[in-house]
Amino acid sequence: MTVGELGELGLIARIKARLPESAPGILVGPGDDAAVMERCRGEELAITTDALVDGVHFDRSFVPLDAVGYRALAVNLSDLAAMGARPLTCVLSLGLPARTELAAIDRFLDGFLALASQFGVTLAGGNISNSPNVLFVDVTAIGSVRRRRILARRGARPGDDLWVSGEIGAAAAGLEWLRERRDSGFGRLRSHDQTERTSASLAEARSAEAGVRDSEEEAEFSRCIERFLRPEPRVRLGRALASHRAASSCIDLSDGLGDAVRQLCAASGVGAALEADALPIAPPARRWFESHGQPAIDRAIAGGDDYELLFTSAPRVRRRLDAVARLGRVRLTRVGSITADRRVVLQYGGREEELPPGFAHFR
Amino acid sequence: MTVGELGELGLIARIKARLPESAPGILVGPGDDAAVMERCRGEELAITTDALVDGVHFDRSFVPLDAVGYRALAVNLSDLAAMGARPLTCVLSLGLPARTELAAIDRFLDGFLALASQFGVTLAGGNISNSPNVLFVDVTAIGSVRRRRILARRGARPGDDLWVSGEIGAAAAGLEWLRERRDSGFGRLRSHDQTERTSASLAEARSAEAGVRDSEEEAEFSRCIERFLRPEPRVRLGRALASHRAASSCIDLSDGLGDAVRQLCAASGVGAALEADALPIAPPARRWFESHGQPAIDRAIAGGDDYELLFTSAPRVRRRLDAVARLGRVRLTRVGSITADRRVVLQYGGREEELPPGFAHFR
Repeated sequence: MTVGELGELGLIARIKARLPESAPGILVGPGDDAAVMERCRGEELAITTDALVDGVHFDRSFVPLDAVGYRALAVNLSDLAAMGARPLTCVLSLGLPARTELAAIDRFLDGFLALASQFGVTLAGGNISNSPNVLFVDVTAIGSVRRRRILARRGARPGDDLWVSGEIGAAAAGLEWLRERRDSGFGRLRSHDQTERTSASLAEARSAEAGVRDSEEEAEFSRCIERFLRPEPRVRLGRALASHRAASSCIDLSDGLGDAVRQLCAASGVGAALEADALPIAPPARRWFESHGQPAIDRAIAGGDDYELLFTSAPRVRRRLDAVARLGRVRLTRVGSITADRRVVLQYGGREEELPPGFAHFR
Repeated sequence: MTVGELGELGLIARIKARLPESAPGILVGPGDDAAVMERCRGEELAITTDALVDGVHFDRSFVPLDAVGYRALAVNLSDLAAMGARPLTCVLSLGLPARTELAAIDRFLDGFLALASQFGVTLAGGNISNSPNVLFVDVTAIGSVRRRRILARRGARPGDDLWVSGEIGAAAAGLEWLRERRDSGFGRLRSHDQTERTSASLAEARSAEAGVRDSEEEAEFSRCIERFLRPEPRVRLGRALASHRAASSCIDLSDGLGDAVRQLCAASGVGAALEADALPIAPPARRWFESHGQPAIDRAIAGGDDYELLFTSAPRVRRRLDAVARLGRVRLTRVGSITADRRVVLQYGGREEELPPGFAHFR
């Protein structure tokens, strides 16, 4: 059955049936003119919106729809994390061709609602539009943060250290693996249930891939694919950075480290020196890039979708970062420092060069 | 110059340049990972989202882009009005083909920002996505409302009167006029500046139209076109209904009176009897429908886009509605009553029939 056959009201009812009868903090849930959420005493509201467009932000030939649902929310939670905000609620706007199968919507919701539940985020409302030519998903997420704890982009100061969470390059390598696999005749994922089968059969599939040879590497590499499909928003880390006042500025890595450093520096009116040898490039991603004749450092800096946090921190508060890493449940790596001169450079083997550009929309 | 040539960051800078440096209640504005707005003391938060898709919700061959911008915000403010909420802020998510002209974006913003300014709504942030095949606009608006003043859909009780604001059918007639004019060779509006010229030359153009003959009718009919292009969200009325506790339930007429009555009744578990003779059908719309051989009552009930408010009110509080109408600056008309039996019927010349269906998405 398709979305067109069921109609808008039927589809809304189908989505509502998957939500709890009532949710904490929600006074009026989906199905009214607007949702109403309880105010947060003592905290301000962080609001972010991000859209995924079929064929631009995901390719349904190798991204299962539950991963699209997961990512649609994850990218917004990552934005809230980068502000130090606690996620509370969200609204979901779907643009759907009438021919969209209900099974596809169900799978989408599987991923979306699983992540929402993991972070205690309520789906307060939304909208469904007919969009004949392309499926799109737009999520607006709302969180709360104390005024003096907001992690803006504009607070970096010369002398601050530059830190990044987790590993970079993994999502870019995972995406390339998925693309190669599609192009090499492993073919389209016909059923969305195939995500699990994909993971299960990954070991066999991967033996065909250069650069990913032994079983330990295979296990590691499946983490790169997962990182692309289901990036973990660093909500705990953002909250810990905020509550410990450990960061002077913060941004998430949606469009890659290079893009993030540049945007953070532009917002703060500073520059940065990145140390190439310090970059926490995911080992299987490094091997993937190198086996494909690509410079791992450039690819890890330019590659998007890791959704780690990049932040600056004054050296005098460095001790706080141990507790922050523990609460954030993620490794933190110092990757450079903030400079007064506004250039953004990469230091590599005693040389210094301009940072390679990141991903640019519309280009 | 196109959006693709300027790039995402350039486009964001271009939009930010049109916004005030700082806005009341906005702690972090556009350009960070998320916007941060001050909490509202004593009021809860109403949140709504609504999308417009090119070719579905508007037709650029006869809807100028400033009207698209106006409508994108207006439909959301109408939803907030229907909850009794005061609009505060919004985020704007644009999906744009790279070939979109910057002049088109500028025109879009003209309409969007003019309406935002009229209601004191700040544009706190947003998102720009590459959308190769279709332009879409998704707005999420946030307002505030006291908990005990929320105008939900579910409060209608048998015996309540059913009221509607302003006039109905105007937008549907205006839309048909615009469509006929396009099809009859008046041609595509080539320049978005032509909105004003359209209005100016309307008198000449209209002399060619059947059913719109004398100059008084012409002036009236241009209000129908304006109603379709730039519907006025009934924010003052919604606030007045809430503050006077004058309504037991409320909904806006986005998809027509028929759809609204049915949705309000379904949410409240009641039925309704609509009185056909009482319906405040806009006189030029009635003449338009009749001159085209269409039953005016059916068309006015089924036609969407009027964005009036439909609400129920207990007869014992009827006196409050005089003050509400004055504060809301709009006429209120009693159009029927709520019944215990769940049918929704139209009473017409002593007969009673099931209500004609409204607009259904995907159908």
